[in-house]
Amino acid sequence: MVIGNSEGPLTSRGGGMSLLIRIDHRSKRPVFGQIMDRIMELVDSGALQPGARLPSTRSLALGLEVNRSTVYRAYQELWSLGYLESRPGSYSTVRKRAKVLSPESRPRGGLLDWAGLARPGCDRLQRAFLQEAALMERAADPEVINFIPLSPDSRLFPLDEFRRFMNRSLTRQGSGLLQYGSPLGYGPLREFIAQRMRLHSVSVSAEEIMITTGAQNALHLLLSLLAEPGAGVVLESPTYSRAIDAFRLGGLNLLPVPLTGEGMDLEVLEGLLRREPPALVYTVPTFHNPTGITTGQAHREELLRLCRQYRVPLVEDGFEEEMKYFGRAVLPIKSMDHDRVVIYLGTFSKVLFPGLRIGWIAADKDLIQGLVPLQRTTILSGNLLDQAALAGFCRSGGYELHIRRVHRVYRRRMQAALEALEGSLDRRRIEWTRPQGGYTIWVRLKGLALSEDELVEHLLGHGVAVLPGSLSFPGPPPELSFRLSIAHLDRPAIREGVGRLGLGLARIFHEDRRKGKL
Amino acid sequence: MVIGNSEGPLTSRGGGMSLLIRIDHRSKRPVFGQIMDRIMELVDSGALQPGARLPSTRSLALGLEVNRSTVYRAYQELWSLGYLESRPGSYSTVRKRAKVLSPESRPRGGLLDWAGLARPGCDRLQRAFLQEAALMERAADPEVINFIPLSPDSRLFPLDEFRRFMNRSLTRQGSGLLQYGSPLGYGPLREFIAQRMRLHSVSVSAEEIMITTGAQNALHLLLSLLAEPGAGVVLESPTYSRAIDAFRLGGLNLLPVPLTGEGMDLEVLEGLLRREPPALVYTVPTFHNPTGITTGQAHREELLRLCRQYRVPLVEDGFEEEMKYFGRAVLPIKSMDHDRVVIYLGTFSKVLFPGLRIGWIAADKDLIQGLVPLQRTTILSGNLLDQAALAGFCRSGGYELHIRRVHRVYRRRMQAALEALEGSLDRRRIEWTRPQGGYTIWVRLKGLALSEDELVEHLLGHGVAVLPGSLSFPGPPPELSFRLSIAHLDRPAIREGVGRLGLGLARIFHEDRRKGKL
Repeated sequence: MVIGNSEGPLTSRGGGMSLLIRIDHRSKRPVFGQIMDRIMELVDSGALQPGARLPSTRSLALGLEVNRSTVYRAYQELWSLGYLESRPGSYSTVRKRAKVLSPESRPRGGLLDWAGLARPGCDRLQRAFLQEAALMERAADPEVINFIPLSPDSRLFPLDEFRRFMNRSLTRQGSGLLQYGSPLGYGPLREFIAQRMRLHSVSVSAEEIMITTGAQNALHLLLSLLAEPGAGVVLESPTYSRAIDAFRLGGLNLLPVPLTGEGMDLEVLEGLLRREPPALVYTVPTFHNPTGITTGQAHREELLRLCRQYRVPLVEDGFEEEMKYFGRAVLPIKSMDHDRVVIYLGTFSKVLFPGLRIGWIAADKDLIQGLVPLQRTTILSGNLLDQAALAGFCRSGGYELHIRRVHRVYRRRMQAALEALEGSLDRRRIEWTRPQGGYTIWVRLKGLALSEDELVEHLLGHGVAVLPGSLSFPGPPPELSFRLSIAHLDRPAIREGVGRLGLGLARIFHEDRRKGKL
Repeated sequence: MVIGNSEGPLTSRGGGMSLLIRIDHRSKRPVFGQIMDRIMELVDSGALQPGARLPSTRSLALGLEVNRSTVYRAYQELWSLGYLESRPGSYSTVRKRAKVLSPESRPRGGLLDWAGLARPGCDRLQRAFLQEAALMERAADPEVINFIPLSPDSRLFPLDEFRRFMNRSLTRQGSGLLQYGSPLGYGPLREFIAQRMRLHSVSVSAEEIMITTGAQNALHLLLSLLAEPGAGVVLESPTYSRAIDAFRLGGLNLLPVPLTGEGMDLEVLEGLLRREPPALVYTVPTFHNPTGITTGQAHREELLRLCRQYRVPLVEDGFEEEMKYFGRAVLPIKSMDHDRVVIYLGTFSKVLFPGLRIGWIAADKDLIQGLVPLQRTTILSGNLLDQAALAGFCRSGGYELHIRRVHRVYRRRMQAALEALEGSLDRRRIEWTRPQGGYTIWVRLKGLALSEDELVEHLLGHGVAVLPGSLSFPGPPPELSFRLSIAHLDRPAIREGVGRLGLGLARIFHEDRRKGKL
């Protein structure tokens, strides 16, 4: 069926056209959207051919008994999507465009087997991703209390203040900020970060800082610069799961060092360093992900000493540096780094807006300069607009104010979580960490004959989702474990969730004892 | 010298302090900034010790004879930078912080030789980067007409409209957009791009599109997925210089195919494909960078046929697809890609805002799914805020309107450049392309005994900067050549620049003939 042409019936009072469009006033889809959808269908199906003239907004509005501005909006969006030839106002004709076949209706299986073409390491990432995605989807059930996401609570975002600075940046410097910019990042933000790091007793200048697309991207860049495929990297076991992914993607040789309650086992580390110096040592000394452990001053000094002795770069991931709630402050390893062996990774994602994707590397100026051409090769230029808006926000005092505010909130949440765990979990069979800051608590279960999948499944059945511990291990995990994140849950939800957790675990241990007696 | 303490003289009317601060009212630095600078100096030098109490804003303002709000602003910024303990309003004391040594004053040369630790390929990138940076700096001289940058003219940016949509996104969806988001990108933007591609007769759905940090990042991601170090990649010679960088960074085996006036030499290509199928073939068929050449329909069909026959992914870089000025439209290769062998790269950088860093990949859904875990491993999450603001702008019709507007402008510029070249250059010894769109023109010089450095230097001496051709060749260039970009220059500047170019080249040829006669 082909309807209308440039002089066809559709031009007369929109009568022809309006017969083809049915408005459902009870639908959630707004009326303009319904008009759009229908016209798109008619074009895509070939019923409306290129060159066909549409009725005027006025006559179609009359025909459909809707407001003229509604039709106008539909035409405008259709024009912007390339369905119509001219802007609303004059007569609109259908534009020539490709027929669309949805991926479903197109023949499955193209010529190439894309999974087969992927590099071997990518395959593994893909499988892990799909498994996690399936878990996340189930954990997102509103009936489930979800201890998985390590994302700050959106309810605490200082949106209005940030918007003010975004506006200001666009108004005052828009054309410069929206142009290609330095791969190093926006100068005043690098300046602010350098100043801010001095609060943590780290002496760096803006020249020693490069802005990155979050701390994850910082690690990826560093590996691209320093680690040839096949090179060794030392990491804590367990550690941040996405760091493991990044090492694997780089084709690196993973050299895990067991994590004790005080940090990575330094004797094991020295043994590894002595054998063959790796490309780098990766550590998360403060509010370690996943365990929440913070290493002490002595451990930090010794770790630094070893890296200096064996001349190995030490990558210090300080992703939650600002989130100290209890106990004495421990300074970043970078603060003692007189020889500039330490590469410090920081981020705004855990204290402000993850979505801006702004992190940084603080390191020797020579290293930073070495990263510039890499940054250019992987993303060409920094996103200066977001960086400028953030810099404005921070420099006005917004950052300091926000940190103090969220600090109070998260401290109370951590307190609530630790109290609830104390009250709900059996200390004889369950161990957990008592972090002095950050968002994560690590739980270990002793002597259970149960697979991790069964454990996670069982807990989901009790309405609580946890991050399976195995994701954070570079090799097979030594025992059953999981991570709790308190970042995005308020105190009532934390208490309720820990309660469910306690109940779920108690049942498991009960069942386990019963089986043992049989 | 240590001045002041918590009960010291500084508290009394700001007298002590105001003696230490000199305001220069003729300085360009605002007064609040001068106050900040001086107090920072005093703290950094140790003259003001942690705990020292600063005078109230009122009394310091009196002492310095400036407005109180000026002192307030200085204190506020100092507080945000961590120099002061409390917010302005109450008494401010100096905060404990690390002593800062600038990189200059710190001992040069840390323990590690970072350049030596860098991977071999990075070294080469670094050298090229420094050379280019030196050239760019000289080309930025306001006396020089700069044909190097391939960045759209900032004067044409639709800033106010974009700001409106940025505001709207932040107001309506801010907390969601600033949270971690899908590595695939913002759904409605993917939808818009899919629709937009249909205007170019490409049938893809939103599921077949992934948003990337510009087209550069798209290429980097693809290589990470599809090309093991050592694998072969076919590329045009010359081609986009940053693509060569990306291939080198990936440790790939470059297989250049000479570019003829009609596109890459398909016989040479077939020879390569027959020998051993490479990981991919990279092509810029439309307004090729650097040459401006657009391949014809027959060439596109044959190129696609070869890739299908040898089952090799064809990466089509359509970075300036929208910028067609003259002649018949040629459809993207992707539009004929029934077997889904083609991976299409697009970007908003050349027609809208480079600074947003938004590009995309359109390809088989399986490939897109394979890229998701890689994207997560390299940047964790997309920047949804910018993507949402852009989607709002585009869907309102802003994109289409902007394209039409800049189209007119750039078409006239290209026309002006081609006319000026016709009038200024000696056709017997100089060849140049006549692009039907885009921003670049490629100039080749026949039979000159001159190095490229000498040529570029000579032209700079005539007040005109060009991109040396060798940067765009994966191997040694066959002849002297350079690229002109008309993107950011208006017509008078283009005419004047081409005039200088003609003069400079005429002198070179004259000199060359004179030497030849000797």
